Amino acid sequence: MGPHPAVAATRVAVRDVLRSMSPGDLVLVACSGGADSLALAAATAFEASRAGIRAGAITIDHGLQPGSTGRAVDLVGRLRAMGLDPVEALGVRVGRRGGPEAAARTARYEALDIAAARHQARAVFLGHTLDDQAETVLLGLARGSGARSLAGMPAVIGHYRRPLLGIDRDTTRAACVALDLATWDDPHNADPAYTRARVRHDVLPVLEKALGPGISESLARTARLFRDDADALDAWADRVQAELTLEDGGLDVEALAELPAAVRRRVLRRKAISVGSPPGDLFARHVDMVERLVISWRGQGPINLPGGVEIRRRCGKLLFHRPSQL
Amino acid sequence: MGPHPAVAATRVAVRDVLRSMSPGDLVLVACSGGADSLALAAATAFEASRAGIRAGAITIDHGLQPGSTGRAVDLVGRLRAMGLDPVEALGVRVGRRGGPEAAARTARYEALDIAAARHQARAVFLGHTLDDQAETVLLGLARGSGARSLAGMPAVIGHYRRPLLGIDRDTTRAACVALDLATWDDPHNADPAYTRARVRHDVLPVLEKALGPGISESLARTARLFRDDADALDAWADRVQAELTLEDGGLDVEALAELPAAVRRRVLRRKAISVGSPPGDLFARHVDMVERLVISWRGQGPINLPGGVEIRRRCGKLLFHRPSQL
Repeated sequence: MGPHPAVAATRVAVRDVLRSMSPGDLVLVACSGGADSLALAAATAFEASRAGIRAGAITIDHGLQPGSTGRAVDLVGRLRAMGLDPVEALGVRVGRRGGPEAAARTARYEALDIAAARHQARAVFLGHTLDDQAETVLLGLARGSGARSLAGMPAVIGHYRRPLLGIDRDTTRAACVALDLATWDDPHNADPAYTRARVRHDVLPVLEKALGPGISESLARTARLFRDDADALDAWADRVQAELTLEDGGLDVEALAELPAAVRRRVLRRKAISVGSPPGDLFARHVDMVERLVISWRGQGPINLPGGVEIRRRCGKLLFHRPSQL
Repeated sequence: MGPHPAVAATRVAVRDVLRSMSPGDLVLVACSGGADSLALAAATAFEASRAGIRAGAITIDHGLQPGSTGRAVDLVGRLRAMGLDPVEALGVRVGRRGGPEAAARTARYEALDIAAARHQARAVFLGHTLDDQAETVLLGLARGSGARSLAGMPAVIGHYRRPLLGIDRDTTRAACVALDLATWDDPHNADPAYTRARVRHDVLPVLEKALGPGISESLARTARLFRDDADALDAWADRVQAELTLEDGGLDVEALAELPAAVRRRVLRRKAISVGSPPGDLFARHVDMVERLVISWRGQGPINLPGGVEIRRRCGKLLFHRPSQL
């Protein structure tokens, strides 16, 4: 008899990712003790040993909840019992920048990066599932800034890998039950103070009810398509930006006007960023204003963008500069 | 004293669209008697007469609810009182194809097309607002088929124009109150049997609560960005499809492999459609299978797509054909 279907699904997903590794490589699983990352750790321990790949795990103790250190110690023992080695619990200090969710994430990835470098790990596996991906897409929708904000989390970025992006949370829970692994539910995941928790517990069930089942799969699939779209359009913008840039750094207005809007807007946005406009403060309405200098020219004066960037049209050229730099 | 701000907003939006028309042209407003299209009719009557453009209105009687004919006759009188001319009520027969919403829409646009041709109208104005656009984007999200499904409703398509896409429903309601126009709420708009009604009454308020106010604006803005993305990528796919097509109609596999995924997938999809695969039945997972013949080639056999289209890889070429045509 083979393994439980849920266990088999997580193993197949991990096997697919391990295929790009070589015998002797080290993979570290980032494990919180939740069902997602615990199922991932178990599948990785199983598949890595068959492929001659070394597998360890890291758990991060954010120190934000009473009892977190005891839980981390306990988890280390259980991960070692799976055959993972090395296994470490790392304490981090969570700052305040960008709000509690962002600060915890920053601290976590810093610690993972350092651990990966110290162990010379080939890859760090993260336990995000299809449901996490669907939530990320919905969070991006609220930003309303186009394909990149709907692109969700990448399956591969730097040395990070997300083997479970195609597998839903119910499957990871079922895998843990089948393997008799006790899981820990982070109370933050249900705390309505966190936007992601509200999306998970309030928005997705209502969407599912209104639009029919399968909405999470649909959102996760959407993410991949948008990532591809954004990559292709960024590549196009890269190519034409070089062609449109004149000797004095200005952009050729006539050539800009002939581009498809999606490409023109990307060129204008990245040019503004390259001159010093902070990406996080640069919204679609700013790009609208710059675009009007190109396609609705009626002799407007200069446009001011966040970061003190000034853009004017003169003699068929769009000139970007930042007077405050002087 | 100027007009109420809500009335002014609808007039500015209509004026923007009338700018592309010439004196003597005829514009027809499609009016249901709801706040959106009534505010649009009032703004069009006002702005058109100032611009020397003729403006009329058409109301469609779907005959689906008791009293609909009486309401249509009443509405015709009120639209004429605004100075609109010609004003007509057109009865339509709603079929069953595609479900009740789609069938009513098909019947409505057929009648509007015929009326526009008969009156030699330059344009037909539709009263869709920013909120309708947000709902359309959410409905598209459920399809999960990429940028085109999130592109919402276009502001311009054929002779149709949607002047109010940037204005929310609350503004059209306020404009009607300010102008003392009695509005009629179609009970279908609140009937949970309709997906759009569920999105409007269940999903959007929950999204707004979870993600913060402004979600409808954000969705509507997203729609425009995705429309631009989809247009640019379609243009790219058009261009390369011609370049990749060999003398026997096959596609050059090596050149396909070098394309960005977003462009390659569009080329594969439209090629399958051109050979006879019905667009509505062709999903992302079908394109995945075809794409694997290009980027994960391990000597697979032919792929079968909906509509009896068969795709095989041979001698560095992807060959599409439809044996059932023989």
